[in-house]
Amino acid sequence: MFSDAVLAVAITLLALNLMVADRGHGSLSRLLFHEWPAFTAYVISFFTIGIVWMNHHALLSVIESVDRSLQFFNLILLLFVVLIPDATRLLADYLAAGGYDSQLAAAIYGGVLEGMSLGFVLMTEWLLREGRAESSIPSYRPWASRRRYYVAPLMYLAVVGLAFVYPLSALIISGAVNAYYAFEQTPSRAKGLTKSDDVAKQ
Amino acid sequence: MFSDAVLAVAITLLALNLMVADRGHGSLSRLLFHEWPAFTAYVISFFTIGIVWMNHHALLSVIESVDRSLQFFNLILLLFVVLIPDATRLLADYLAAGGYDSQLAAAIYGGVLEGMSLGFVLMTEWLLREGRAESSIPSYRPWASRRRYYVAPLMYLAVVGLAFVYPLSALIISGAVNAYYAFEQTPSRAKGLTKSDDVAKQ
Amino acid sequence: MFSDAVLAVAITLLALNLMVADRGHGSLSRLLFHEWPAFTAYVISFFTIGIVWMNHHALLSVIESVDRSLQFFNLILLLFVVLIPDATRLLADYLAAGGYDSQLAAAIYGGVLEGMSLGFVLMTEWLLREGRAESSIPSYRPWASRRRYYVAPLMYLAVVGLAFVYPLSALIISGAVNAYYAFEQTPSRAKGLTKSDDVAKQ
Amino acid sequence: MFSDAVLAVAITLLALNLMVADRGHGSLSRLLFHEWPAFTAYVISFFTIGIVWMNHHALLSVIESVDRSLQFFNLILLLFVVLIPDATRLLADYLAAGGYDSQLAAAIYGGVLEGMSLGFVLMTEWLLREGRAESSIPSYRPWASRRRYYVAPLMYLAVVGLAFVYPLSALIISGAVNAYYAFEQTPSRAKGLTKSDDVAKQ
Repeated sequence: MFSDAVLAVAITLLALNLMVADRGHGSLSRLLFHEWPAFTAYVISFFTIGIVWMNHHALLSVIESVDRSLQFFNLILLLFVVLIPDATRLLADYLAAGGYDSQLAAAIYGGVLEGMSLGFVLMTEWLLREGRAESSIPSYRPWASRRRYYVAPLMYLAVVGLAFVYPLSALIISGAVNAYYAFEQTPSRAKGLTKSDDVAKQ
Repeated sequence: MFSDAVLAVAITLLALNLMVADRGHGSLSRLLFHEWPAFTAYVISFFTIGIVWMNHHALLSVIESVDRSLQFFNLILLLFVVLIPDATRLLADYLAAGGYDSQLAAAIYGGVLEGMSLGFVLMTEWLLREGRAESSIPSYRPWASRRRYYVAPLMYLAVVGLAFVYPLSALIISGAVNAYYAFEQTPSRAKGLTKSDDVAKQ
Repeated sequence: MFSDAVLAVAITLLALNLMVADRGHGSLSRLLFHEWPAFTAYVISFFTIGIVWMNHHALLSVIESVDRSLQFFNLILLLFVVLIPDATRLLADYLAAGGYDSQLAAAIYGGVLEGMSLGFVLMTEWLLREGRAESSIPSYRPWASRRRYYVAPLMYLAVVGLAFVYPLSALIISGAVNAYYAFEQTPSRAKGLTKSDDVAKQ
Repeated sequence: MFSDAVLAVAITLLALNLMVADRGHGSLSRLLFHEWPAFTAYVISFFTIGIVWMNHHALLSVIESVDRSLQFFNLILLLFVVLIPDATRLLADYLAAGGYDSQLAAAIYGGVLEGMSLGFVLMTEWLLREGRAESSIPSYRPWASRRRYYVAPLMYLAVVGLAFVYPLSALIISGAVNAYYAFEQTPSRAKGLTKSDDVAKQ
């Protein structure tokens, strides 16, 4: 409930931040033309948070009961999620400018997503301990889940590194990570911890 | 839950955006007088999002179980819903100014609503596949539902087209679409997929 | 769910608006000193929205089933609720200034609360029709409920009228309305439609 | 529901406020460097609200039934919670500046947290009355609970006092309070009113 609401506010603030930049006294068409990094970053970050919600929902749906540690890991995830609108706006503001500022903005964007994905890793590792998932996870499954949940932190680490070489890679890699999770967990091909998956196997 | 919260934040940000414009150092009465497009656009967009919520609620209430595809279509719907406050503010800012900027603002407003209504079409088409609605939909029903859900995208397409001729039509047509959905789905006349409808027929 | 989230966002935006005004380059203590109308208006509007939530919650808890009309009346209520943060900010900005602007700001504040309370009246009247409340309401009860729900629109109408004579009355009367609803519906003295009341009588 | 949403919006606005300050026309790296109080304050306030959510959740989970008084105490809690983003921003803006303004900002930060923790005390005292918790609380338990819930108001009172001597203590003490609650209520060491605790004892 709380997490859903946090994700919902964060995803909506993405668009609010977009709006703040739109306002100005110049011609609207020129303004919008110069805003292409903002629009691209908006769409990519929107799906990033959207997929966080889907994965979060899938992860929570197999949990037997919540304890204080999981709530804490969840807070770490959210700590970075709510920074995504800020990091997106920074990237949008500085990407086209080029130079050191655009590199720094890309590295911050990657760093925030890295923190978010590590929050997920903590939650997944907690879940993979004996008896915490509703249906006991078959022995080969933990590694499939791990593979899924470790893709993001590795890729976002690459964003941080590449930021200082080619800042635009922040958007390209983040978009690719979104595409990976969007296709990897469609019902027919799910390898991970979705409820539909677990239910289907029973 | 997540969708409801996104809709709730978006509908409240409509008013926040209104407020931002209200603040100034001139006389309050003059300020408010010049804000008539903002107030009109606020009320129309408020009911647009309000009706999205009602229809979204009605649609989800007949769904047997949610899968990853539906969640994705839902995200597409929300991607455009959260842009409505921005598009509303743009329209309010540029409508009275006239010229190309007001045409562009009206076209953007129409385009955002078009995207939102196409998100609904995707969700409805998903639902109309065999076995996805709680009660099986009688054979003649899909077309009634389709008619209902295809009205909006057609009308919003007209908004985009007419924007470059008569920008104010964006508000007029959007208001008319709201009125259509407000009256079309009152319990006694519902032709669509509301729960009360389905329940009443059993 | 949706309504709760809208109320939650609106109540939190009250404080966001407060904050926007706090930021400046002068001395913090001087800034805060000049903000007394903002703090007073914040506290009063906070409890206004808080009591809307309590009454809304109490009203919905006795409803047998929701229909499209009620959803629409609910939207009218929310249309005005989300304007409360704006109206509160306007009042805070213009109250101390005096003159016509402070009168207009007070009238707008009263008008927004009037609209909100009329939304409640619509929902209450809907509920009082035969068979819509969970437990049938005894014959004498509708009038007790009506009295409770008609106090607010009458008082807020007085705010609009008095705004042009004595703008500060907007805060005084709104505070008094809050106090009325806070005490009128404590469990032991409830005369209205709270669930605890109905449950206690069974 | 409502409380969860308020907490969710407040925790997300923390980051929005962070963002507003980030925007400027200088070099991004210089801007970020000067923002260290904002980042520190953001993280500490984030966990403060996060722990409020955890404790609020734990407290509500043992409540048998909600009455109007509890809703009112809950509103008092929320009244101060939604001020946390503002108080955090004030502290971040004025802490590095030094002088009387930084002392005042630290005192306001402490005062807002004091109010929030007193809201919790009211809710806890309400709960400790006979028959309000789901499982009757053994005789020695109320004092354990009281100890837990009175730590925060005492510490935050110290923040207000020390603010005028050493403003930075506001962040140090608040961080320490967070650490206390984070460790004090991990499942194995919980002394308080968490559900897992009560359940484990049965």
